[in-house]
Amino acid sequence: MDEFELIQNYFNWPLIDPTVELGIGDDAAIFNLDTGYQLVTTTDTLSEGVHFFKDDSPENVAYKSLAVNLSDIAAMGAIAKWFTLAITLPKVDEIWLKKFSESLKETSSKYNVSLIGGDTTRGSLNITITMMGVVEKSKAIKRSGANNGDNIYISGEIGDAALCLKKINEGERPDKAEMVKLNRPIPRLDLGYALNGVASSCIDISDGLEQDLSHIMKASKVGAIIDVQKLPLSQSVVKYIEGNNDWSVPLCGGDDYELCFTAPKNFNSKIINIAKSCKIRITKIGVISDSKNLKIKGYDGHGESYKHF
Amino acid sequence: MDEFELIQNYFNWPLIDPTVELGIGDDAAIFNLDTGYQLVTTTDTLSEGVHFFKDDSPENVAYKSLAVNLSDIAAMGAIAKWFTLAITLPKVDEIWLKKFSESLKETSSKYNVSLIGGDTTRGSLNITITMMGVVEKSKAIKRSGANNGDNIYISGEIGDAALCLKKINEGERPDKAEMVKLNRPIPRLDLGYALNGVASSCIDISDGLEQDLSHIMKASKVGAIIDVQKLPLSQSVVKYIEGNNDWSVPLCGGDDYELCFTAPKNFNSKIINIAKSCKIRITKIGVISDSKNLKIKGYDGHGESYKHF
Repeated sequence: MDEFELIQNYFNWPLIDPTVELGIGDDAAIFNLDTGYQLVTTTDTLSEGVHFFKDDSPENVAYKSLAVNLSDIAAMGAIAKWFTLAITLPKVDEIWLKKFSESLKETSSKYNVSLIGGDTTRGSLNITITMMGVVEKSKAIKRSGANNGDNIYISGEIGDAALCLKKINEGERPDKAEMVKLNRPIPRLDLGYALNGVASSCIDISDGLEQDLSHIMKASKVGAIIDVQKLPLSQSVVKYIEGNNDWSVPLCGGDDYELCFTAPKNFNSKIINIAKSCKIRITKIGVISDSKNLKIKGYDGHGESYKHF
Repeated sequence: MDEFELIQNYFNWPLIDPTVELGIGDDAAIFNLDTGYQLVTTTDTLSEGVHFFKDDSPENVAYKSLAVNLSDIAAMGAIAKWFTLAITLPKVDEIWLKKFSESLKETSSKYNVSLIGGDTTRGSLNITITMMGVVEKSKAIKRSGANNGDNIYISGEIGDAALCLKKINEGERPDKAEMVKLNRPIPRLDLGYALNGVASSCIDISDGLEQDLSHIMKASKVGAIIDVQKLPLSQSVVKYIEGNNDWSVPLCGGDDYELCFTAPKNFNSKIINIAKSCKIRITKIGVISDSKNLKIKGYDGHGESYKHF
């Protein structure tokens, strides 16, 4: 099978997006932006042995490759639209490719995004997705908008993905529900979009709350005070912390892809309504300060967030 | 050095593009499209050991990573504008990174494109660039527009990059000028843009003329007749063919990134003027036929264009 058959067989499904004039099969794709919108773009790579295990299922790898990019679009309060896939494969394994392709198609259909281009090359397994989205002009939620006195919120629960990874690395076998937390993070697109015009800043928690909140602080030139007792945690994470007195799992563990965002205090009731309409838990974990430091009540600081090198 | 310092030190130079509202440093970049334009996007990966040698200079690797993507935008008759860089690195080698970064910056400045986002990860050296560009509405040159009777043209000269690669693989040492042809292909952006409204179809020759022209034929549902005696060749390639009776170098050799395009017969004088204004050699190598086959006069068909797997 040559590259063109491979693309035809596995990555060239029909698109129903009217904004796409030309998808896969030319030197480049052609697509249209509606008036009044800006473009938003992000790229994330997943490498075997770094971001996923060698024996992880192709379905999970495809899902997660797309989800982490969708999560970045969510964090901007934008609408995800189009993506390209650059996949480096050690060999043509048709069974693997079929499963990967079906999961990618299913996930892209679920989140209404169109695969419009790509490249397949030979080498160590490496998947780079570049996701493009749209946002109403001047409406994107940047990291730089947090103000002194704003509340700090996070969506869902954090620490489960890191706890699952910790178990695997220590030779334990996490249960199915724990594996789902690591392998199938849910991009919070509905929430991100609903926060448009409400949140003053937003980031997705990919490298750990402590590090990701610090990015908001740095970009906004503010500090933050959060309280570990307020963190939204699953029963597994609570049990782990009780047993090990180790808060680094929810504070420094990445891979949950929940949103961490700030909003003015008087928007608290709006946030409660958004939580209801998006059917998602939203928890206030602290406030933005003018100190430029991150103060974490109840934590003595022994953890370390994810380092890429 | 962590990922954020790495990006700050090597990939976050000031942008002067007024269409970019937010570049590197948030979850996603934000940029604007002028009214009346469509978006064009392409992605290409270069992997060490496949697309370049382990000892190739970081300057050349950066240049070529960008050039191959620019070439795809050129083949659409579009204007290149913004790009993302996903780079997987085995380790942080500051000397390598500095050279790579300087070359990328210099090349992006030369071709007026802005680096607006990216991702750095650890693993085997792998560079994926996703390039976005703009084209006036309905003006992109697709592969599918060639008609029976159209002339077929190519820009520049072909076969030099393949000959250089052949010499390296056979243990010979190509001279400096030959290495430049392999390592520094020139994206034909001016030409692509000038062909907008003139060419009926276009592709860049990345995998070999025979294979790339076949893509035009397939997309346009036509055939083609070309003549090896008309191919624009350098003295080195002519000499090689005379010595080896091997036409596969210019016919099946990739990596030249010249444009292969078609245009109605009565546009021939326009093409001659475009060649003059773009200061580039343009050669008519054949005509589009209604046969759906590729007939190559003077070639018995022993070569094979580049296979990705």
